[in-house]
Amino acid sequence: MNPVLVEAWRGDAVESAHAGAIAVLDADGAVVASLGDIDRPIFPRSAVKALQALPLVESDAAERLRLNDDELALACASHNGEPEHVRTAAGMLAKAGVDADVLECGVHWPYLDTVSRAMTARGETPTALNNNCSGKHAGFVCLACGLMGWNDSGLDLRQYVKGYVSPEHPVMREVTDALQSATGFDLSRARRGVDGCSIPTFAIPLRRLALAFARFGTGRGLRAGEARAAKRLREAVAKSPFMVAGTGRFDTRVMERLGARAFCKVGAEGVYCASLPERGLGVAIKIDDGNNARAAEVAMAAMIEAFVTLNDTEATFMRGLSDVPLKNWNGIEVGALRAAQALRSL
Amino acid sequence: MNPVLVEAWRGDAVESAHAGAIAVLDADGAVVASLGDIDRPIFPRSAVKALQALPLVESDAAERLRLNDDELALACASHNGEPEHVRTAAGMLAKAGVDADVLECGVHWPYLDTVSRAMTARGETPTALNNNCSGKHAGFVCLACGLMGWNDSGLDLRQYVKGYVSPEHPVMREVTDALQSATGFDLSRARRGVDGCSIPTFAIPLRRLALAFARFGTGRGLRAGEARAAKRLREAVAKSPFMVAGTGRFDTRVMERLGARAFCKVGAEGVYCASLPERGLGVAIKIDDGNNARAAEVAMAAMIEAFVTLNDTEATFMRGLSDVPLKNWNGIEVGALRAAQALRSL
Repeated sequence: MNPVLVEAWRGDAVESAHAGAIAVLDADGAVVASLGDIDRPIFPRSAVKALQALPLVESDAAERLRLNDDELALACASHNGEPEHVRTAAGMLAKAGVDADVLECGVHWPYLDTVSRAMTARGETPTALNNNCSGKHAGFVCLACGLMGWNDSGLDLRQYVKGYVSPEHPVMREVTDALQSATGFDLSRARRGVDGCSIPTFAIPLRRLALAFARFGTGRGLRAGEARAAKRLREAVAKSPFMVAGTGRFDTRVMERLGARAFCKVGAEGVYCASLPERGLGVAIKIDDGNNARAAEVAMAAMIEAFVTLNDTEATFMRGLSDVPLKNWNGIEVGALRAAQALRSL
Repeated sequence: MNPVLVEAWRGDAVESAHAGAIAVLDADGAVVASLGDIDRPIFPRSAVKALQALPLVESDAAERLRLNDDELALACASHNGEPEHVRTAAGMLAKAGVDADVLECGVHWPYLDTVSRAMTARGETPTALNNNCSGKHAGFVCLACGLMGWNDSGLDLRQYVKGYVSPEHPVMREVTDALQSATGFDLSRARRGVDGCSIPTFAIPLRRLALAFARFGTGRGLRAGEARAAKRLREAVAKSPFMVAGTGRFDTRVMERLGARAFCKVGAEGVYCASLPERGLGVAIKIDDGNNARAAEVAMAAMIEAFVTLNDTEATFMRGLSDVPLKNWNGIEVGALRAAQALRSL
């Protein structure tokens, strides 16, 4: 059993608790800190979107299509589906010469309630552009432009990208190769599931995910082209943290504060990955029960506190994310979410 | 550590898992089945609303105010804040001669997205009547009419009920006494927290909660007046299961199917309690990580399958709640929520 990483307190009692595992590695594969089982493969889900975006930048696609910081950040995003996210995803597709019809991510209401409610008030319904993965998928479509040999090939992009979410499609093969290269984990033998947006997700140990993000943050252990692509993506997200998540979201708030000193990215089912380039570290977290908003986030905040050098203001800000007062409907403080002792002792 | 009760599968792998404890007792206090630690006190939250409604019926308040089935069911509810719930709560307050201003539960948007969105489209904002606890609180106000001695006392109800959420208020003393009587647990020495709607919540072992619901379902071990009140509340909820939760909700769906054969009630933070009168059993569940929608519900469904005699149609229906396909945004079946083996073996 994995140890408790995050506790939900009510009054002076622990009401609920979240167990899980954490791996902190350097780019040479040395374990700097760990809790729980870091060798059991877990589905990293959207926490590896930045790794899946590497081919877009390493190939000439991002440069030839002149993708800007907003667009590259959106390619790494699980966004709120806010108007800026939707416009940016549409803009990426326009640069590739197609529209939202090619997206195979499915449709859901924007994550941000106020946006969903405002859309309803205007009589609107969501499209694939509102899907939190629309930027990643738009990035796949941009990558496809290059993979098919641009317009010289005589191929039609709309035809070429059909079924791009399938593991056998050239786009997804390229994306999977990048993930395998960064993690050094043989994905041909990994358990495979279908992700929320229909692309494959591969079960990978936290140890390998933390290693990949140590590499992503430092370039060490990556091919030269991959290392350049990783740097470009990190810079883009640091300059445009709103695009990677959105209003009120942990990733956006943390990177607005810390910029390039912490690249962090949530994944569904309690997964969090981060690159902490100053110390050359990668972090990977899985909450056993799959809780993101109150468990994986709190654990990641505590890891940033532990492994990033923070000034007083930054430390106070981060403590507000790892020790979070809980208020009830009357605004009365009734408890708190707190990083557990095991995590504070790392 | 408690055992895993519910698993979230993706493809052929367990992606996330929910540990917890379950107690199944008869009204004599015999443990018929259990998993995990059933003696650690946990906050039962809204799972005990029906016990908290006992004084409303045992006193003459419900009868004198002619509360109907809908209203008594709403007094036991964590409802969706749908128009029918709002109207019914307002009706209870009107019978007591007051309006929603007296409610001290706080305000939140209705649980049901479609209702929240429809309200937004109409330019409305929520009131305390939309709060999932508004029926329970309206019941407290009705109880107060009797406690203050009706109009004969010369007291003003609006003044009398002020601060009724406080543990020291006569209303809350009465409610706490009922909870103590049903569970047989000394609440004066229990840990106390503040609930979402601002009333006290007391930490009580699952063993005592299961006992209380075995008593609630059979009347055994209760005072005659309490037993009559329990029967009246169970009948009201069985006749009006929509009021106890609402559209699409587990409690409503199950009781629409099984009627008086299963009284079940969710509480925040992964708590579920049930009375299964046919076998004279009470059930109490706590998911360690606090997950309701996909863990506590699945566990409760498996308990109903195990301890209620079901015909084929009912068994298929319940299996659909304990073994739930998970689909992604494209409607592709990507996994399932499943009661774990430990739970199936009870």
